[in-house]
Amino acid sequence: MSKSCLTMDKLVSHCKTVGFVYPGSDIYGGLANTWDYGPLGVELKNNIKRSWWKRFVQENPSTYGVDAAILMNSRVWEASGHTASFSDPKMDCRECKTRYRADNLIEEHSKGEVNPDTMTNEEMEAYIEEHHINCPRCGRHNWTPIRQFNMMFSTSRGVTDEGQDLIYLRPETAQGEFVNFLNVQRTTRAKVPFGIAQIGKAFRNEITPGNFIFRTIEFEQMEHQWFCKGEDGDKFYHEYKQKAWQYLLDLGFDEAELRFKDHDKLAHYAKAACDIQYNFPIGWSELNGIHNRTDYDLSRHQEYSGKPMQYLDPVTNEKYVPYDIEYSIGCDRLLLAVLCAAYDEEQLEGGDSRVVMHFHPFLAPYKVAILPLQKNLGDKAKELYATLSKHFMCTYDETGSIGKRYRRQDQIGTPMCVTIDFDTLEDDTVTVRDRDTMQQVRLPIDQLVSYVQERVQFN
Amino acid sequence: MSKSCLTMDKLVSHCKTVGFVYPGSDIYGGLANTWDYGPLGVELKNNIKRSWWKRFVQENPSTYGVDAAILMNSRVWEASGHTASFSDPKMDCRECKTRYRADNLIEEHSKGEVNPDTMTNEEMEAYIEEHHINCPRCGRHNWTPIRQFNMMFSTSRGVTDEGQDLIYLRPETAQGEFVNFLNVQRTTRAKVPFGIAQIGKAFRNEITPGNFIFRTIEFEQMEHQWFCKGEDGDKFYHEYKQKAWQYLLDLGFDEAELRFKDHDKLAHYAKAACDIQYNFPIGWSELNGIHNRTDYDLSRHQEYSGKPMQYLDPVTNEKYVPYDIEYSIGCDRLLLAVLCAAYDEEQLEGGDSRVVMHFHPFLAPYKVAILPLQKNLGDKAKELYATLSKHFMCTYDETGSIGKRYRRQDQIGTPMCVTIDFDTLEDDTVTVRDRDTMQQVRLPIDQLVSYVQERVQFN
Repeated sequence: MSKSCLTMDKLVSHCKTVGFVYPGSDIYGGLANTWDYGPLGVELKNNIKRSWWKRFVQENPSTYGVDAAILMNSRVWEASGHTASFSDPKMDCRECKTRYRADNLIEEHSKGEVNPDTMTNEEMEAYIEEHHINCPRCGRHNWTPIRQFNMMFSTSRGVTDEGQDLIYLRPETAQGEFVNFLNVQRTTRAKVPFGIAQIGKAFRNEITPGNFIFRTIEFEQMEHQWFCKGEDGDKFYHEYKQKAWQYLLDLGFDEAELRFKDHDKLAHYAKAACDIQYNFPIGWSELNGIHNRTDYDLSRHQEYSGKPMQYLDPVTNEKYVPYDIEYSIGCDRLLLAVLCAAYDEEQLEGGDSRVVMHFHPFLAPYKVAILPLQKNLGDKAKELYATLSKHFMCTYDETGSIGKRYRRQDQIGTPMCVTIDFDTLEDDTVTVRDRDTMQQVRLPIDQLVSYVQERVQFN
Repeated sequence: MSKSCLTMDKLVSHCKTVGFVYPGSDIYGGLANTWDYGPLGVELKNNIKRSWWKRFVQENPSTYGVDAAILMNSRVWEASGHTASFSDPKMDCRECKTRYRADNLIEEHSKGEVNPDTMTNEEMEAYIEEHHINCPRCGRHNWTPIRQFNMMFSTSRGVTDEGQDLIYLRPETAQGEFVNFLNVQRTTRAKVPFGIAQIGKAFRNEITPGNFIFRTIEFEQMEHQWFCKGEDGDKFYHEYKQKAWQYLLDLGFDEAELRFKDHDKLAHYAKAACDIQYNFPIGWSELNGIHNRTDYDLSRHQEYSGKPMQYLDPVTNEKYVPYDIEYSIGCDRLLLAVLCAAYDEEQLEGGDSRVVMHFHPFLAPYKVAILPLQKNLGDKAKELYATLSKHFMCTYDETGSIGKRYRRQDQIGTPMCVTIDFDTLEDDTVTVRDRDTMQQVRLPIDQLVSYVQERVQFN
């Protein structure tokens, strides 16, 4: 299939049908922009996280993991600037009470010809009046003024009645790495340069429609902060651009579907920033970002917490606040890209066709499907399931023709199907069928574990 | 060391010092009852989750995983009963504005002699007046009346201005399994009995002091719901009691430190309920729960969502709402128990002593420490690190005497230390030193991967 035929609708439908992703709170009509991972989705997501952790933590002697709480002291968000300015310009339709981002209304109305990023709120209001932009939902034109709407979800800690207990769901995981800089450095006795990595959830009260799991109000980030000397910032920025790129290639992405995109506008503290974009069905969009954030974050926390964030170089005796090279990738978004890249519809000989997910075997939800050719071979097959499932996720299927069962495994991306037949009872051999080539080999059962293990590595 | 010498303070201090757990938002003075996992803690926690998932999902052909969103449609909490009654009786001290649970005040004042669970709010207020219970913080006696305080953290979705958008951080993960019952059954074509498992975060706005990570406002649950015919409920309740118990033994817990505790009072819908308690430094306390929840949860969701939650038995054509046997264990609490059970202070020959964490090797943060005997053996040692870290988490240490380095690894629970010496350069052999026995063996480097792999399995 040509990739251009894959629409988001088709992918969403496939994911719901086979059990990768369901709408959140489905039986209650959902909750906008939330999704639940089903039996296949949770395995795929865990495997993505494992591949990333293996590459960026396990195999890196100078990177240390953390897992910080989602609920943090509110001072963190004052230091990071989120309390003051993590907001979007919102307008409500007074008629149907729907809320929009003013910049989105202008972008959509002008079909991308006008860039609202350079406009003040007053200019946006004037533009919306002048061009008589109506409410996309009810078609009327009766807008409130623009208000800045903070995208952090707030809640109340409720320890005292004094009202000082407003806290936030973190809108990004990065601050969990920054506030632990001293703790990690102290307990690991790490020498600069070193890294702190984290995988965890973040929350944003976004209005934008989500495009499936591309943008959700609750999402998981995989982040790697590399702390270095300021003068080494450029070098490591380029190094992490390459590492981020190589990671995607090693997961099986086609280089033609990826591209670097430098940021048009740098944040005031950033020295360099770029994204890697993937060619999603919705067009080229951000998959991950790499930033040279300078010493901004640690300096802000030094200022707000009063704790010195300086590193004392044991060789030169220099004291300085390290620079930070941030590499950040959305786990759900990477999962979406993995699904898009893996999805294929193939015409087979004889007019047959199949849907197949060409996942990297390390990422595939199940490594092996165990298929007894007939039901009375079930005991032998279940014995094999018990053996193999000690080592990897397996699935078992004894219903329907063998061809139909192969198709079921193809559409969920199982790299190997093991068939048990009557010869198995005689000579303890099985047939292993490959998802991508559909070739079959005959193997002794006692070689199966190592045969599979060799084929599901991520290196 | 006798276990009775391990205090919570000693454990907290050890965890902070070596990097298992830090106070949350530490540089800002913390946020009560939140904790961040450091480099060792995140590995330990991930390994605990992996051991549980392997046992209850990977090796169970009839259990399916899900990963549902934390933010759910509010109707879920109406159906579950949390909106109406997930609350504690709270009073505020009007003088110092501190909030307490009225039942805790009575329990503490009566030293456990009075059971406030059987008292109404009026009776509790009267008791507190009569016995003149003062504010434990400021010592004065000026209480507000008792108010029921819902323990769910609420936030606002903010899509419209109509105020219908109150949502909650889930106070338990279980509802994520229940609302996906139909989706999972449909997409996996599972036949009753089958299970749905989930690992995920939940949040409770608790006032109670936390006892380290025993009770926190943000915590991770590992849950397994087993859906079965009503008449099989008892059988599976006992089966999951045994499975939960066996899992703990296989992680290395001492049977003498565990006990079953039947619930004194059953929830109105429950047919049977018990905990497994562990002998924490704070005394015997709940580690996990097993409940026969009958068909209550699915029936409530059927009622509130209007979606039939019935299962049609393909053999008997019977239609029924399945019973649910819930097995639930707090991941952070299990981690605390693992830390307590592993911690030891040992007297060695020659008057020396060591702190050692006797983790099950599968759970240990690092499987192997690579220690070059001298710094000029670093190249060879780093080469070995690169090889081994493809397979498991390793650490590298070249500073200090070898004895000091062994102690560092003992206190973080690394099961094997590999020493590179000058003979290694000649014959490619290394010394492997065992954490628990402190015995050493000499091994060829090319046997190391399989030597370690054999010793870090969880089966």
